[in-house]
Amino acid sequence: MPHGPLMIIGGAEDKLRKRTILKEFVAAAGGPQSRIAVVPTASSLGPEVSGVYDALFRREGATEVVAVRPESREEAHDPERVAQIEAATGVFMTGGNQLKLSSIVCGTPVGDAIVAAHERGAVVGGTSAGASIQSSHMLAFGGPGSTPKQRMTQMAAGLGLVDAAVIDQHFDQRNRYGRLLMIVAQSPQLLGIGVDEDTAAIVERDDEGHQVLRVIGRGAVTVLDPARITTNAFEAKRSAPILASGVVLHMLPEGSCFDLTTRTLVPPEAQVSEEDAAELSEAGRDLRAMARDIAAADASPGALRRRLARRIRSRGDDPAPTPDDDPAGTAPEQEGPTR
Amino acid sequence: MPHGPLMIIGGAEDKLRKRTILKEFVAAAGGPQSRIAVVPTASSLGPEVSGVYDALFRREGATEVVAVRPESREEAHDPERVAQIEAATGVFMTGGNQLKLSSIVCGTPVGDAIVAAHERGAVVGGTSAGASIQSSHMLAFGGPGSTPKQRMTQMAAGLGLVDAAVIDQHFDQRNRYGRLLMIVAQSPQLLGIGVDEDTAAIVERDDEGHQVLRVIGRGAVTVLDPARITTNAFEAKRSAPILASGVVLHMLPEGSCFDLTTRTLVPPEAQVSEEDAAELSEAGRDLRAMARDIAAADASPGALRRRLARRIRSRGDDPAPTPDDDPAGTAPEQEGPTR
Repeated sequence: MPHGPLMIIGGAEDKLRKRTILKEFVAAAGGPQSRIAVVPTASSLGPEVSGVYDALFRREGATEVVAVRPESREEAHDPERVAQIEAATGVFMTGGNQLKLSSIVCGTPVGDAIVAAHERGAVVGGTSAGASIQSSHMLAFGGPGSTPKQRMTQMAAGLGLVDAAVIDQHFDQRNRYGRLLMIVAQSPQLLGIGVDEDTAAIVERDDEGHQVLRVIGRGAVTVLDPARITTNAFEAKRSAPILASGVVLHMLPEGSCFDLTTRTLVPPEAQVSEEDAAELSEAGRDLRAMARDIAAADASPGALRRRLARRIRSRGDDPAPTPDDDPAGTAPEQEGPTR
Repeated sequence: MPHGPLMIIGGAEDKLRKRTILKEFVAAAGGPQSRIAVVPTASSLGPEVSGVYDALFRREGATEVVAVRPESREEAHDPERVAQIEAATGVFMTGGNQLKLSSIVCGTPVGDAIVAAHERGAVVGGTSAGASIQSSHMLAFGGPGSTPKQRMTQMAAGLGLVDAAVIDQHFDQRNRYGRLLMIVAQSPQLLGIGVDEDTAAIVERDDEGHQVLRVIGRGAVTVLDPARITTNAFEAKRSAPILASGVVLHMLPEGSCFDLTTRTLVPPEAQVSEEDAAELSEAGRDLRAMARDIAAADASPGALRRRLARRIRSRGDDPAPTPDDDPAGTAPEQEGPTR
């Protein structure tokens, strides 16, 4: 059975207007056939939060939504809660305190059932705290700022659905570059993944078993690859800024794909509009005609004159494109900056 | 004549306590021999600002401080103002609006005199706006946020003291990752340099003519190298987040050096304490003794027994270091995180 997709949402996903991310989650869970388990353990609110997602998911067409809310490790051993996860086609973890979520759920039957759900093909998603917990290593808490400083943040263990990675959320909005850089400087085998609000990193396996991340939503996903870092993170003192040189940065807006296994951007497929394609095909014809004209001129000037006269009689148009044309259709027509 | 040092200060340099950066500026200008020209054109205040720096530089030992304040391009042609720059051993540009500073000064005799001062060996420094103007390309203004978005910022031309670069300031404090990334994504031949508050990038030429950046102060200097970027900056629409994949990031705290010409970290020199050095030298002796012991054992077990017996008689101590020792003194003694 193939692994299900993961949806790592940076918090504050749009719930009122376009609802791109919530729609995508319900669709991945099976649309009208979906049975969604909402895990609101990270939140201090509980019923209110699961009530909101219940309504949201039903509006997008889910037929069954159930709240699975262990509030202690003991409750996370409850067979009924485990069965609810086992029956789900999608598991959604809400925002809140990721350390509360991980310390109640990780390493319990409910936690294991979430991992098993992913492995049997269900979609597992989460927003904010529910995003953080999906990686092997979890950013537990920490301060804002773009300069990484020793001790500015704390790491704990996550569910491990994304291996060899650490996930951060509200990334742009809460200025969390520094803390993610600090973590990867101290653990350079990890990939740092920062997800903006109303943005999701969807992680799926491709045919070769690679985990490939695709971005949807309003913001971007930032990937920090410290494989070749030079750092003093092992000796920087107290709260001093730390050296982190040679980290490779990937800033990925909607539509980008990134191979987490090879740590490289998946080249975007060239998108050619129908209009461009028609123009390109016509240009191809013109170029072939021009090539024949040139060959004729090489044979003799008289042969070219006869060719051109024949063509003008039969088509009634210019024999060849002028230099000011754009025969290959390469000049993109788009709205760009005017500066 | 060798070029003088540049001091690129990220704003809000400490003026009351340690005053590391201001001290360094006066020292570079010649200490008691220094004649400093303060250019407060960026500021809307003027006399108040130059008065503050007058007092600060005199406190650090400068004997002559003069304000050079053109308020129009015409005033920036004034021969007296030019002469004041020409007589200076240090030129300091204050904070304010870098676009005001550059539009009044760049390409005028006063601007040319600042460039000439650098070329004849004077120190040229500036804070905030006075930092931004030093690069060939100047970040004129723009919004905060760590995700780069199309049209979030605007570029203008600077003095060009640092070539092929764009400088940003208040970098950590005002969350300016996004705008610097946007600029380098659109102009990947430039190096992006972000300087935190109370932090300075000191740029000097080494023996090979490379511009080498050294960091002092409380924060860090962030360098973004987009040489191998993949980006959609040429076609991203309106204010959409832009793709910027493969940017190499260098986060440089105090004491780090970075070669701007080769775009690589200058490896820090190993710092070995006297105590460590003594231990290392003794360990060397022990290791040589051990090597001879092993050679003796290879010859015959009896030869080794005789060697060891001789040594114990003569030194009265253990014949060789035990495995729990740290003979090479490689375990650093420092204060590190306790987690």
